[in-house]
Amino acid sequence: MSAPIELPFETLSWQGGLDGHVRMIEQTLLPLEEKQIEVRTVPEMVDAIWRLAVRGAPAIGVAAGFGMVLGVRGAGPDDDVLELARETKRTLDAARPTAVNLMWATDRVLRHLETVDGDGSELKAACLREAIAIYDGDRATCRAMGELGAGLITDGESLLTHCNAGALATAGMGTALAPMYTAHAQGKRIAVFADETRPLLQGARITAWELQRAGIDVTLLTDGMAARVMDEGKIDRVFVGSDRITRNGDVCNKIGTFQVALAASHFGVPFHVVAPLSTVDPHLHSGRDIPIEERPAEEITEGFGRRTAPQGVKVYAPAFDVTPASLVTSIITEVGIIERPDTEKVEDALRRGGVSL
Amino acid sequence: MSAPIELPFETLSWQGGLDGHVRMIEQTLLPLEEKQIEVRTVPEMVDAIWRLAVRGAPAIGVAAGFGMVLGVRGAGPDDDVLELARETKRTLDAARPTAVNLMWATDRVLRHLETVDGDGSELKAACLREAIAIYDGDRATCRAMGELGAGLITDGESLLTHCNAGALATAGMGTALAPMYTAHAQGKRIAVFADETRPLLQGARITAWELQRAGIDVTLLTDGMAARVMDEGKIDRVFVGSDRITRNGDVCNKIGTFQVALAASHFGVPFHVVAPLSTVDPHLHSGRDIPIEERPAEEITEGFGRRTAPQGVKVYAPAFDVTPASLVTSIITEVGIIERPDTEKVEDALRRGGVSL
Repeated sequence: MSAPIELPFETLSWQGGLDGHVRMIEQTLLPLEEKQIEVRTVPEMVDAIWRLAVRGAPAIGVAAGFGMVLGVRGAGPDDDVLELARETKRTLDAARPTAVNLMWATDRVLRHLETVDGDGSELKAACLREAIAIYDGDRATCRAMGELGAGLITDGESLLTHCNAGALATAGMGTALAPMYTAHAQGKRIAVFADETRPLLQGARITAWELQRAGIDVTLLTDGMAARVMDEGKIDRVFVGSDRITRNGDVCNKIGTFQVALAASHFGVPFHVVAPLSTVDPHLHSGRDIPIEERPAEEITEGFGRRTAPQGVKVYAPAFDVTPASLVTSIITEVGIIERPDTEKVEDALRRGGVSL
Repeated sequence: MSAPIELPFETLSWQGGLDGHVRMIEQTLLPLEEKQIEVRTVPEMVDAIWRLAVRGAPAIGVAAGFGMVLGVRGAGPDDDVLELARETKRTLDAARPTAVNLMWATDRVLRHLETVDGDGSELKAACLREAIAIYDGDRATCRAMGELGAGLITDGESLLTHCNAGALATAGMGTALAPMYTAHAQGKRIAVFADETRPLLQGARITAWELQRAGIDVTLLTDGMAARVMDEGKIDRVFVGSDRITRNGDVCNKIGTFQVALAASHFGVPFHVVAPLSTVDPHLHSGRDIPIEERPAEEITEGFGRRTAPQGVKVYAPAFDVTPASLVTSIITEVGIIERPDTEKVEDALRRGGVSL
């Protein structure tokens, strides 16, 4: 694997030693202001997670890992560090109860501490090491997917993405955007079209910001434009992320992804899903099994500070859709590319990734 | 044909005799306020058209016809009514130079006046009659398309539409919404899903308002949701309008329509285009020949009253897309339904409609 690619911004990182702090981009101010905040206590971290100053499943996991350090590092010689860690986990887990990566990370740190045989200061040092291992692991995963995805991109290509599966959702280069950052760093000339992604406009607010900040040519579209832009021959390839992939290769992602996949299929444009193996839920056999969250009506009727629909109108707002495996050209994971995914190929990749089925 | 269907609002109409006025809904206040304005002079009509108080190609045509009446009715015994009509036409035509229906209507009134053999007061009366004939013709066309389209709808169906091709775009029941109003008046229970239609949100602001106002069950979606909602089995049929249809049956309509058509095709949901024969441009052989207007970037980056994208980001904003005839189940016109349109069938319909090819 080649040297890590440096982006001109960092979503979050640990600064200094055990007495250090977390530095993160205050994402609520994007895209109009780029501001770093310093997080030094557990209540500050809970607040940052709750306010969405840090968002995106992998980034939340990394933040929670660091939060564990903030919770235990102040322990005195008479304090029970393990007990403090359990308490910190409870506090952090409550910040966003539906974020599975949050609980996954606090669990991982806690389980690691339970295996450490040492005094309080050794436990504290182990806590920092484990949190940084989570951070490093996330970055390595992004890098691996970026390399694999970039291998598909040739010089001069135009790419399309939907929502934000970028650096700002991870501690590294992101998932769907990792191939773009990598191809750009390799000197390939690329142009990216980004869907604005209603209702919450993550494409306009976040994807457009981070690509522009990294010096990548980015053009904003509304969510109804992909088919037209493909019809004009402007798109060579689609990269999207995923919130959940089922064993048969069906891909759950932000609402609107399915329509992009249909357009890509119509025009023969390759449709790539970039997602770490942890996105695959081995308990679900097909997309039919995925429960779809609904968003509040107000995000559609008054999403931008003023009302744009009649009072009392009904709204239906599924937050995600499921693109059937038959429309997916490939799933790019950190252990390899799954071409034309089906149950056999996905299970194969899970086994290679060490998941027992 | 059955009795006209009365909607609980009227987009625009002429009130009284030659000394009357135009009453219209002030559409710029929708969806939050329903207000009627009275237009009594040519400058007031130019202002109403320019401000988009009245919008939609057919409605603008009707408004312009009435505008001709406002321009000539004050003529004294020594005034040249024809000269006054020509002057009025020039003033009205400049209100929205790209609105072809505007010029079509002022032309039609002027040409009619040129055939009238009579004095000034006879010319003035003829002007009002011709303007009302345009109004009546538009309403009759909507009614005919509504009847044909409603014939396809069975009790209990859920329908989807994109943008606004409704009563508020015409002097009658609209185009795409005419089958819905007609089916509703026939006592069929229907539910309508309306795409919000970025960038200008005509679906959220106008379609949702007029269907709700008419007592039809309407639910708002964002533009990326149609495929998901169809995947859930919630849509039985799609009705959309059109801005231009080419001889081979390709359909130009508001951006986002093509993606709805692709989703409908994927799920086997019938996709109907409702458009008067005047929408067919016999000079264009296929959708490739249609020039596509681009919208200003600000409608996307600051469309909701505050900026939602980074400063300086590029935007690509085609206002329309072209759905290929192969994805169109039928085109519903005032002279009949063109099933699975192709060049032969479209030319056939044009001939039946009296268009010489």
